[in-house]
Amino acid sequence: MTAQSWTAGTGDLDLLQRLARRAPAFQSSVWETVDRLVSGGAPDAIYFGSGTPSREVMPLARLQEAGRIAWEEVLATPGALDYGDAAGYPPLRELIARRMAALGIETSADSIILTNGSQQGIDYLCRLMLDPGDTIVVEGPTYLGALQVFDAHEVNYITAPMDDQGLDIDALVALLDASPVTPKLIYTIPTFQNPTGITMPLARRERLVALARERGILILEDDPYGELWVDEAPPPPLRALDDQVAYLGTFSKTVAPGVRIGWIVAPPRFMEMLTIQKEVADIHGDRVMMRTIHRAVDGFLDDHLPVARALYRTRRDAMISGLERFMPAGTSWSYPGGGFFVWVTLPEGLNAVELLPVAAGSGVAYLAGEWFYPGYVWPSASRNLRLNFSTLEEVRIEEGLRRLGAVLNEALAAAS
Amino acid sequence: MTAQSWTAGTGDLDLLQRLARRAPAFQSSVWETVDRLVSGGAPDAIYFGSGTPSREVMPLARLQEAGRIAWEEVLATPGALDYGDAAGYPPLRELIARRMAALGIETSADSIILTNGSQQGIDYLCRLMLDPGDTIVVEGPTYLGALQVFDAHEVNYITAPMDDQGLDIDALVALLDASPVTPKLIYTIPTFQNPTGITMPLARRERLVALARERGILILEDDPYGELWVDEAPPPPLRALDDQVAYLGTFSKTVAPGVRIGWIVAPPRFMEMLTIQKEVADIHGDRVMMRTIHRAVDGFLDDHLPVARALYRTRRDAMISGLERFMPAGTSWSYPGGGFFVWVTLPEGLNAVELLPVAAGSGVAYLAGEWFYPGYVWPSASRNLRLNFSTLEEVRIEEGLRRLGAVLNEALAAAS
Repeated sequence: MTAQSWTAGTGDLDLLQRLARRAPAFQSSVWETVDRLVSGGAPDAIYFGSGTPSREVMPLARLQEAGRIAWEEVLATPGALDYGDAAGYPPLRELIARRMAALGIETSADSIILTNGSQQGIDYLCRLMLDPGDTIVVEGPTYLGALQVFDAHEVNYITAPMDDQGLDIDALVALLDASPVTPKLIYTIPTFQNPTGITMPLARRERLVALARERGILILEDDPYGELWVDEAPPPPLRALDDQVAYLGTFSKTVAPGVRIGWIVAPPRFMEMLTIQKEVADIHGDRVMMRTIHRAVDGFLDDHLPVARALYRTRRDAMISGLERFMPAGTSWSYPGGGFFVWVTLPEGLNAVELLPVAAGSGVAYLAGEWFYPGYVWPSASRNLRLNFSTLEEVRIEEGLRRLGAVLNEALAAAS
Repeated sequence: MTAQSWTAGTGDLDLLQRLARRAPAFQSSVWETVDRLVSGGAPDAIYFGSGTPSREVMPLARLQEAGRIAWEEVLATPGALDYGDAAGYPPLRELIARRMAALGIETSADSIILTNGSQQGIDYLCRLMLDPGDTIVVEGPTYLGALQVFDAHEVNYITAPMDDQGLDIDALVALLDASPVTPKLIYTIPTFQNPTGITMPLARRERLVALARERGILILEDDPYGELWVDEAPPPPLRALDDQVAYLGTFSKTVAPGVRIGWIVAPPRFMEMLTIQKEVADIHGDRVMMRTIHRAVDGFLDDHLPVARALYRTRRDAMISGLERFMPAGTSWSYPGGGFFVWVTLPEGLNAVELLPVAAGSGVAYLAGEWFYPGYVWPSASRNLRLNFSTLEEVRIEEGLRRLGAVLNEALAAAS
């Protein structure tokens, strides 16, 4: 839909015809489409579309107690609810710096700015780097929420293909050489990627940061899942290899998304600009929740993560064995070592977008792979789909895949 | 400072030379200048620069109790810390709709979106309306935090003069007629304006909304202070006169700024776009604080506001009587009926920017009026300054004005 497509004849027409060029990016949302479709499906539908952590391992009681302590601190601290530090509560930034060090990232609180989830971090880096019409590199496929941000910044995309080791660097070099302009940034999720679940090995990480440095391109590394490995710890983040990388972290997946606490580890000379950017955009985050997360995470999260990993391991395993059991021949899938997602490729002749209403009617829903590419449109063709394994119990995963397998087998039978 | 002004020869030079055109808007902040200046002054300096409510009337114990209830609700509500409603917690939006009705604004929760303070609301309306190079109207002077947002959107300004009844509509008509382009929006603070304290009478409000509708210009009405009247209730908001006005409200001044809860009352056909805008920019706000504010405000704020008003009345009165007592002849000032600020015009020959270091050295600081105009630069000439009366006890207001009067009298003596 474009800004010009509103019906004429209403009293507010003048205003709607005067919207910014980027306004169409705010006129439809894939999530609305998904919600409509899922709510129109069977009442006990099994929804594989989620991106949230499991409620079973959200540390709600710990958070509640931390909230109690935070409010006690607020009442004991003059000015605790005045305007505050644009970069965010210093003790939480110090705690995050220590957690970053454990991942191999040498940084300090002075290079860390708190954001309302890493979604806001993506937006802030865009605002600092991108003019309308600038070119960026994204992985194909990639996180669709990031595409929404990039669309709102009116970018041109270079979509770099992935293989089973993540972003294909040789292909990226060829694309960069063929491009008339040097992209401003490369957006990558190197660890347990969304939507594929794929992790980039160390050697490829080293090539990517060297390439970006050589070409003068900012790497925007989004790492929501890195701590949620289920087999073994992943290679160090790109940021551990080069301090020019802008790293995005979040407690949305390890604690809870509803608290909206993420962070940017800023490249050294970006910190002041990002801090003023935050001041300009919303002054700073909720000061009570920043204290709450500090109290909740401190001395707790490292003991809690193994519990979460164990749960997600059983669910990842349930999904892989369900795929092996129920998918028709010719279906393939990724084997994620962590994170929340498996990426499935359907047999030739099947279309994940077209089958979604059928699947929803049969009590199972997923996200179509096509939505994870720039220029996602509805409807559109694709053989891929994303399945989430973090939110469902093993028996539900198995039942969902049984239903999905039946839908796919029926479609294959109809097509032959 | 421009994006090109970084020193050459560092490893990160390439990235810094590739920043967005808007990046200079993030390379310096008036607040840093003020902080530096004030921290370099006398240790017991009296700071008239604040924009916060008085700590004495921040309902901290009520908030703490509401926080306790909110966390109980979270633990009792499955999914309460999952991702949620992009527009924000529905019961708080319903409560706000009822509060809006009491101000004469007919709306509903379906037209209200929660933001991280009204600062974020300004930004969101800009993102929806403005392309780089678009023209907007601001009052001269106006809220400097809004100017920071507008600068980041690369606007051209039409600065409309004010008189003692607010925005001068005749002057605005002349400016619009003389402009080669129609501005996209008019940003106004009609009630207890920041920085002047001036309130626009009803007749002028009616002219302004008629003018904006006739010309097809969006009015962005920022109303952080409207409920904090100290003499009598102000005229209805512009939004009460025309539902095409985008209205910004906040609990930053009536409850506390550190909670970061504001809202937009959207023009009818803007709501879906603003909701998706929120989803794109940061998904949604902190779900616990939205519940907390709902519990804190419900059944409380209307009883609490008279307490705040009474306190601010004594402080407004202390400021006016201090000005009468200590200011040199030739000084004039506004007489605010509410809000937090008095706008002072110094006698001819005095310069508020140049005198600020002198005043800070003598133990009193203020914000220079020049910073409240587009293109604010440091240093720059101005005869105006903004004084805050919300945060200081009466004896401190009196002492601060005594010090300021001495500085001004000395400067006048030196100049003559």
